[in-house]
Amino acid sequence: MSQTRQNSACNIHPLIAGRWSPRAFDGNRAVETEKLAACLEAARWSSSCFGDEPWRFIVADKSRNPEGWQQMLDVLVEANQQWAQRAPVLVLACAAQKFVKNGKVNRWGQYDTGQAMMSFALQAVGEGLITHPMGGFDDEAAKAAFSIPDDVTLMSVTALGYSGDLSLLSQPYQDIETAERRRKPIGEFAFTRWGEAWGEQV
Amino acid sequence: MSQTRQNSACNIHPLIAGRWSPRAFDGNRAVETEKLAACLEAARWSSSCFGDEPWRFIVADKSRNPEGWQQMLDVLVEANQQWAQRAPVLVLACAAQKFVKNGKVNRWGQYDTGQAMMSFALQAVGEGLITHPMGGFDDEAAKAAFSIPDDVTLMSVTALGYSGDLSLLSQPYQDIETAERRRKPIGEFAFTRWGEAWGEQV
Repeated sequence: MSQTRQNSACNIHPLIAGRWSPRAFDGNRAVETEKLAACLEAARWSSSCFGDEPWRFIVADKSRNPEGWQQMLDVLVEANQQWAQRAPVLVLACAAQKFVKNGKVNRWGQYDTGQAMMSFALQAVGEGLITHPMGGFDDEAAKAAFSIPDDVTLMSVTALGYSGDLSLLSQPYQDIETAERRRKPIGEFAFTRWGEAWGEQV
Repeated sequence: MSQTRQNSACNIHPLIAGRWSPRAFDGNRAVETEKLAACLEAARWSSSCFGDEPWRFIVADKSRNPEGWQQMLDVLVEANQQWAQRAPVLVLACAAQKFVKNGKVNRWGQYDTGQAMMSFALQAVGEGLITHPMGGFDDEAAKAAFSIPDDVTLMSVTALGYSGDLSLLSQPYQDIETAERRRKPIGEFAFTRWGEAWGEQV
């Protein structure tokens, strides 16, 4: 990772501290199939309600499936296409709406798919890769392009690849890429009771 | 971790391979506040749509807040209470339904909360702790107990602590605890087009 930005206040694991969402991908370097398989394997071992494994992925690897990759790029909103065109792999994550086991509504489908994709992203860090998840894509176009049924919810398209040249990004994206990473303090999202900051106990 | 079960087929990062969902907690060993803080910090640096950070946690630490912990234990379904009574920390993860920035519906709230909780769980592995997420709890009772507003969705209660004595579990849970871990093959959830297994390319 040429642009590691580890500025978390607390001492967290390097794999987690090293994950962020860059836009500067190396457009000339494919992702080795073994590395992509390892990311999928990491997602595979994620946890899920009743072990139903509700995550479904459409994997678009430019080097092995250029047509599928182009279709995936095309469903992204234009602002994402600008930089994601240099990402060699695009992975669409979908969440099953019903349990496979009994056909009932699975209210944890999206949550569990998020868990799986975080495992994917962290394995990518371990492989020396970068990821950037996107919510900006055309849902209906993606469903049509990849024959996705109506009983899954399309959640994100994640760009996967190697870190690349920052100067190829437009100036606004270069600025975002080098800006300080920010998050709200723990006490603003972790409570002992709603609104009562957990941090104040420490 | 006294009961590590790393049986994933592929070579994934030890932090990810080492995460599973045991029920045998050590009821006599509290979680150090620094370790709990590190897990929350890991969640904090997760990714979210528009950077809205929709995860909200109610943290019930028996050693620091025994009343809150008991309230959290009480909202679990009875089958979970059986073993979770020995978990020293219970964390309720909730997802904001609307973006903080503009009040519009955030359709990624649950997905992003799942991402944050996977970061939490993996940091726990790094701290030598175990986690077990539960969907089985009384939603309305939890809302009432912790004054949770209506515009968040309650997703899971995660037990956090140290690994403990397997023999304290009831026999069915002992059997689950020592059974082989299983997941569907990658080709059943990763496609190049819906239903066309990605794995067949490899």
